[in-house]
Amino acid sequence: MNIFVSGATGFIGSHLIKQLLKLGHSITVNLRPGKETSFNSNVKTHTLGKGDIESDIDFFRREDFDGIIHLASLYITNHKSYEVSDLIDSNVKFGSYLLECASKASVNWFINTGTFWQNYQDEDYSPVNLYAATKQAFESIMQFYSETNQIKTCTLRLSDTFGQNDPRPKIFSLWERIAKSGETLPMSQGEQIIDINHISNVVHAFITLAGHLQNEPWNIKSGAVYALNAEKRYSLKELSIIFERVMETKLNIAWGDLDYREREVMVPWSKGVSIPDYFPVVTIEEGLKELKWKY
Amino acid sequence: MNIFVSGATGFIGSHLIKQLLKLGHSITVNLRPGKETSFNSNVKTHTLGKGDIESDIDFFRREDFDGIIHLASLYITNHKSYEVSDLIDSNVKFGSYLLECASKASVNWFINTGTFWQNYQDEDYSPVNLYAATKQAFESIMQFYSETNQIKTCTLRLSDTFGQNDPRPKIFSLWERIAKSGETLPMSQGEQIIDINHISNVVHAFITLAGHLQNEPWNIKSGAVYALNAEKRYSLKELSIIFERVMETKLNIAWGDLDYREREVMVPWSKGVSIPDYFPVVTIEEGLKELKWKY
Repeated sequence: MNIFVSGATGFIGSHLIKQLLKLGHSITVNLRPGKETSFNSNVKTHTLGKGDIESDIDFFRREDFDGIIHLASLYITNHKSYEVSDLIDSNVKFGSYLLECASKASVNWFINTGTFWQNYQDEDYSPVNLYAATKQAFESIMQFYSETNQIKTCTLRLSDTFGQNDPRPKIFSLWERIAKSGETLPMSQGEQIIDINHISNVVHAFITLAGHLQNEPWNIKSGAVYALNAEKRYSLKELSIIFERVMETKLNIAWGDLDYREREVMVPWSKGVSIPDYFPVVTIEEGLKELKWKY
Repeated sequence: MNIFVSGATGFIGSHLIKQLLKLGHSITVNLRPGKETSFNSNVKTHTLGKGDIESDIDFFRREDFDGIIHLASLYITNHKSYEVSDLIDSNVKFGSYLLECASKASVNWFINTGTFWQNYQDEDYSPVNLYAATKQAFESIMQFYSETNQIKTCTLRLSDTFGQNDPRPKIFSLWERIAKSGETLPMSQGEQIIDINHISNVVHAFITLAGHLQNEPWNIKSGAVYALNAEKRYSLKELSIIFERVMETKLNIAWGDLDYREREVMVPWSKGVSIPDYFPVVTIEEGLKELKWKY
């Protein structure tokens, strides 16, 4: 497949690209201006928005991409007022620009990345934060392109993810730190259910979806929304026990010392549809073991 | 009421402001930079986005507005590629900025303006064009503010509107022109149903809604979406006969000489909910008579 990827430098993007190259696909990524990034030499780069949109449409036509995987996103848990415009620019406007280029250049398919946080309290739509609202807003825009153009679109909504080289300040890195230092970590009661997938599963999900769109497009209805659920869900407390067992360590957590945060997701979205023929390739335990070998 | 209005210079905005002033309300409008506009001397003006967002939030706090009526919008029937960014800026980003200011400054209510074109073929959501998709995107953003802040939001979706001083190139002005010139106008078969309201009804609808939000907020559920339906609907062909009768003129229309356009709305949205206690104040015939007196 000949694929254009946005957000290639992120945690998911970098793992996905490595795997796509391994499978022999041709990859072009968006190189954001001013970003010093070194990609694998097999990866082609292009900077969107350097000239006018017509020049980018021409580029897409020339390259004749089969599909787009749109991972680029600005993530902010609790936005400040001055960040509203940035969130819309990154999560609505940039993707719309990409969709306009892709549909005008007759790209066949477009995979968008959403979040379980669009489905607070298992609602069809209830955003946990403004970030999630901008993701929903983009899906509304995408539906226009999906209904009025040949391009087939779909969204993969993700929950928590983990794996090697994760630069994001997530729970496992926090626990790794306190396991080493022995310090006590104040946390909430820990009853919230966590739906977390190892990065290998995330990569596998995107590639399974791309494979359908490329080879069996009849399997995917344009505009479809899929959920990447973990095989098993655990409460945060249960997860800490698994962590201790696999990592052979002890965590000093002061459960209940913190309040749950506002709009804490106690039970992640459970009504999402799975990608046809998708199956997880790595369990949480296996993923944690991999992290352990790293140290 | 002390109200901030965006989009005050437009067709609906200018009529609405005139009526709000007549009713004794205090009005502040957003004055877009570089726009030469003269408002009634009772209207206060403010330019949003001149400084940083905190200074606009401070302004909203000082003015202590009861509510916002958000009419500002960029309307494009069939967008060109280079207009995608403008549509998102005007119809998603600007409104989000306004919502952020309003909610941070504890404004009580926010009325948003939508379009029947969000409901192509009577679907809950199917956008006729990218314009309609940006309106839907904004509603997704608004839901975040509505669910996480005190501010009560709602949307009034509009179909066609007409009235005096309408600068937009709409059907009645077209017919006025050919009635005078005697020229023949090629049109489609004319079987599409038109849902059109005189501007007085539109103004009355906004004011009814604002009245609820101000005085009987329990009547309005935050996030509610209302439709402003015409009392009676006519096909375009029937409408031309009413026009001829009221205006005492003859239209030379070559029905069927044009094809319906792509995604022509044959039956406008019919599943919308009416504003509680709203009633139309002017019929199509009365509205047309008013236009006639003008000439």
